Amino acid sequence: MARFNFNPGPAALPKSVLETAQKEFTNYDSTHMSVLELSHRSKSYEDIHFEAVKRLRSLLDIPEQYEVLFLQGGASQQFAMVPMNFLNSEQSASYIVSGSWSEKALKEAKSIGQAEIYASTKDTNYTKIPDVHSIQNINEKTAYVHLTSNNTIYGTQWRDFPETDTTPLIADMSSDILSRRFDVRSFSLFYAGAQKNLGPSGVTVVVADRQFLEKSRKDIPTIFSYQTHVEKHSLYHTPPTFSIYMLNLVLKWVEEQGGIDAIESLNKQKAEKLYDAIDHSNNFYKGHAEVASRSAMNVTFTLENKELEELFLQEAEEAGFSGLKGHRSVGGLRASLYNAVPLEAVNALCSFMDDFRHRHQ
Amino acid sequence: MARFNFNPGPAALPKSVLETAQKEFTNYDSTHMSVLELSHRSKSYEDIHFEAVKRLRSLLDIPEQYEVLFLQGGASQQFAMVPMNFLNSEQSASYIVSGSWSEKALKEAKSIGQAEIYASTKDTNYTKIPDVHSIQNINEKTAYVHLTSNNTIYGTQWRDFPETDTTPLIADMSSDILSRRFDVRSFSLFYAGAQKNLGPSGVTVVVADRQFLEKSRKDIPTIFSYQTHVEKHSLYHTPPTFSIYMLNLVLKWVEEQGGIDAIESLNKQKAEKLYDAIDHSNNFYKGHAEVASRSAMNVTFTLENKELEELFLQEAEEAGFSGLKGHRSVGGLRASLYNAVPLEAVNALCSFMDDFRHRHQ
Repeated sequence: MARFNFNPGPAALPKSVLETAQKEFTNYDSTHMSVLELSHRSKSYEDIHFEAVKRLRSLLDIPEQYEVLFLQGGASQQFAMVPMNFLNSEQSASYIVSGSWSEKALKEAKSIGQAEIYASTKDTNYTKIPDVHSIQNINEKTAYVHLTSNNTIYGTQWRDFPETDTTPLIADMSSDILSRRFDVRSFSLFYAGAQKNLGPSGVTVVVADRQFLEKSRKDIPTIFSYQTHVEKHSLYHTPPTFSIYMLNLVLKWVEEQGGIDAIESLNKQKAEKLYDAIDHSNNFYKGHAEVASRSAMNVTFTLENKELEELFLQEAEEAGFSGLKGHRSVGGLRASLYNAVPLEAVNALCSFMDDFRHRHQ
Repeated sequence: MARFNFNPGPAALPKSVLETAQKEFTNYDSTHMSVLELSHRSKSYEDIHFEAVKRLRSLLDIPEQYEVLFLQGGASQQFAMVPMNFLNSEQSASYIVSGSWSEKALKEAKSIGQAEIYASTKDTNYTKIPDVHSIQNINEKTAYVHLTSNNTIYGTQWRDFPETDTTPLIADMSSDILSRRFDVRSFSLFYAGAQKNLGPSGVTVVVADRQFLEKSRKDIPTIFSYQTHVEKHSLYHTPPTFSIYMLNLVLKWVEEQGGIDAIESLNKQKAEKLYDAIDHSNNFYKGHAEVASRSAMNVTFTLENKELEELFLQEAEEAGFSGLKGHRSVGGLRASLYNAVPLEAVNALCSFMDDFRHRHQ
């Protein structure tokens, strides 16, 4: 039976990437060893490591003055590392809160220093992105402004990022990095757990302006200082070698697809197709997000009642669709359309949704 | 050409484990998905996760009142998490320093609170384990005593761990966990990066007494609190799912070998064989560690001069032996004999060493 993987992360990986990894799993590049068995100090591994850095630089058009780091601990660990590195006792950090992950980032910052909400859409149950286009004349003691570029749980996504003048802008891009073009120079730092668009879980990508990094605090544990990892090219301690190997294969695959513009165009097509199915369902399917804030990555919707949603999930599972259950904190349904989800899978889901609607409307 | 992998970590994995992982790489347990693509909230993944916990409990005979956690960031992150969780401003921590990794653990503790050296063998270039058998009447303000059970770089290993009376004992067991039997109850907490005996890099095992964990500090970032991970069964944030899957396969393999006693017996045999080759080389090969402190995991030795060592490494590489170069901080040679290194590889290495000696003595 064909399986269509709509998991929110860890998520679908490109089929050809999996096949390559399987083929060379026990004998990487004639080493007679698995990638898993390579020393992180070996030339074979270092080639993978630095090739992945180079590919990400090229795909995202990352300027020379930015560092690319491969860390561990996911976005959740970045929620702590960002304020540990950039917030001192005389400053405050500003958080734009657009969903559960921004809430968590704010909460963690508050456990480390002073942090406050700059804008939030909590009062509308996060159906939209806060209406922030430019941030000017912000308190000069503001260490940085933090936002979440895409909200996996609520299915909303920033269209245009706010201008912040001289205040550093930091973003959690875990669920939409590499899905569309954006100007890296708008950010002082951004980070992403790999397990949505970049590869498997276990590796976290951090991209940051070198000048900004130089201002980081020196009085924190070595392992949590970005500078430690900059100086050692993310080889200060043993990196998650296999996850970085998979990341490199995924980046190569993105290149083969035509790069970020081709990926973005396909992602738009996939999202439009699915939102169309929702919008033309005579209100049988109801989108959670306001149209202007809709995410191209996570499409969230509900049905008339919980029983019907349960039935939908059950029939969908039987028909070969995985991962469509909404996050436990909001319920309903969610289809995650990350880069590796093919248009074919979205087409199949739309057909299933039409069929289900005709049988149950 | 046969390859013999003596890498210090990431290191050799059992051949049958790699073959199983390769076979089911693109279709795990009839899910038509790779393990890498499974949601960490799915039943398929949770089964793997909790099976690995159960296996480790059984293999190490971990009592019910101990928690087993799967974290990220390796031992280096534990160097910081231990003092963050267990050291308050009125206390001090005591470190037994037996090599570079203990030094790093101590340095990180000092960046967080008060920490001091209880004993050290630095003055003899870490050729032996400090002579500490029992720690009594230690300052009551001592939060814990920390030691490194095996020193990967210098090739020394504790035989019997010190008694510490009521003072909590904490150990970094990264390079010898699961290689021999020991009494878990002697420790309040121990941790290990997986990339030597447990599996691939990317996952860190922490085992800790629940009562001890309850005393941990509450004023630290959520992500660095052990209690966070206890409460969520290491699923607070996305775990390194594939590394844990590989860990589970390695644990299954250890069971199939006859468990920890069979593994320990084989490890002894491997180490004796190699130390014999060194001891009977007419001083051509010189062991770094004193005999009573010799490690069964990492065998460190030198030759007459650097040129001969270079030649040894070159010929060894050509003959199919990988990972024999000593750590850059001490030089010389090192063979790491972790669980997955077969006796056959050690026999081949000993033959090569005898042959090399006869040609160059």
